[in-house]
Amino acid sequence: MPSERTVERLSLYRHLLSRALTEGAAHVHSHQLAGMAGATAAQVRHDVMSIGYSGTPTQGYEVEKLIESIGEFLDTPLSRNIALMGVGNLGRAILSDFAVRRPTLKIVAAFDVEPDRVNRVIHGCRCHSLEELQQIIWTQQIAIAIIAVPASEAQPIADTLCEAGICGMLNFAPVRLQVPQGVFVDDVNITIALEKVSYFAGRKALDRGRIG
Amino acid sequence: MPSERTVERLSLYRHLLSRALTEGAAHVHSHQLAGMAGATAAQVRHDVMSIGYSGTPTQGYEVEKLIESIGEFLDTPLSRNIALMGVGNLGRAILSDFAVRRPTLKIVAAFDVEPDRVNRVIHGCRCHSLEELQQIIWTQQIAIAIIAVPASEAQPIADTLCEAGICGMLNFAPVRLQVPQGVFVDDVNITIALEKVSYFAGRKALDRGRIG
Repeated sequence: MPSERTVERLSLYRHLLSRALTEGAAHVHSHQLAGMAGATAAQVRHDVMSIGYSGTPTQGYEVEKLIESIGEFLDTPLSRNIALMGVGNLGRAILSDFAVRRPTLKIVAAFDVEPDRVNRVIHGCRCHSLEELQQIIWTQQIAIAIIAVPASEAQPIADTLCEAGICGMLNFAPVRLQVPQGVFVDDVNITIALEKVSYFAGRKALDRGRIG
Repeated sequence: MPSERTVERLSLYRHLLSRALTEGAAHVHSHQLAGMAGATAAQVRHDVMSIGYSGTPTQGYEVEKLIESIGEFLDTPLSRNIALMGVGNLGRAILSDFAVRRPTLKIVAAFDVEPDRVNRVIHGCRCHSLEELQQIIWTQQIAIAIIAVPASEAQPIADTLCEAGICGMLNFAPVRLQVPQGVFVDDVNITIALEKVSYFAGRKALDRGRIG
């Protein structure tokens, strides 16, 4: 089993390679891909080797084939249909800005408890009531959910999703969700990310001699 | 210098400990904190030791003192004032949902290029034009910026911020920003996070025997 960081990097490589391909690149060297990804060339070679792809030493990797290999490795036979829980400001931002980025990952249904959101189409996605959750998850073969509800509602929503058979969640609520072993959860905690930026930015500012 | 993961965990511990404190907890054992944080007890003890705090073996850590110690370690003398670049859907979500989470980190100014956003107060934060950026960054002592603009605008905005003296950025745009050495950048890439969830959820589903 690869680590979470390896999977993140492979996803990033595919994204960068796809862009390079549209710009006409047929081959890419490990150090070039490393430069784009903010990694080391050794790291790139290790990651690429771990998915069973090998480039030719003189020409580098074939961009199209490497994209294909990463896809074979990353893309599971699991349904790529996603449910969005919560269509407040964050949910709307996710629908409008992120829904269309990957053809293989698609938000097919949204859910909310607010009467003025239910049964409406918001940024191209129909919003349903929670009563319909179980049925829609089964009929639409949804395996993944994005949790964009307030912190106090996140755990009950996660419980309902687990009962409905969801296998993975991307959680934006600032709580640690308790889930059964067979469910994978990743957290996007914007406050923690900001604290990290603040910490390392502070160290960099000290180095510059601006403060301290 | 601690690793990014260590800083993330310390930030998470503080968040969890603060909640435990409001619920009346005076002491916490490393295994309890580990359970809340999704870490191991050994990891917690290592992290806590690395900031120079030590608990008593029988009673565990004093919650209030540990929060204080983490603060002394994490909170830099750097200004905690933040600029938000871009007040579209994502920017509004950040302002409405995340602006008030930490008293020590505050979004004090927003910037946008859209005439119907500039000079308005949006979710309690004044939105300025880019022409005012340099002056406001200096007068408000802003050291950190959140980048919530479309991908095509992210690099020019980052360049402007670096020229204005910003030390750190939290970047939501799906591009790798090129910045000078003295600037720290962290990326929140929702597509990559979703691909990761999809990958590991797929593995968990295979384990359950539902598919494959």
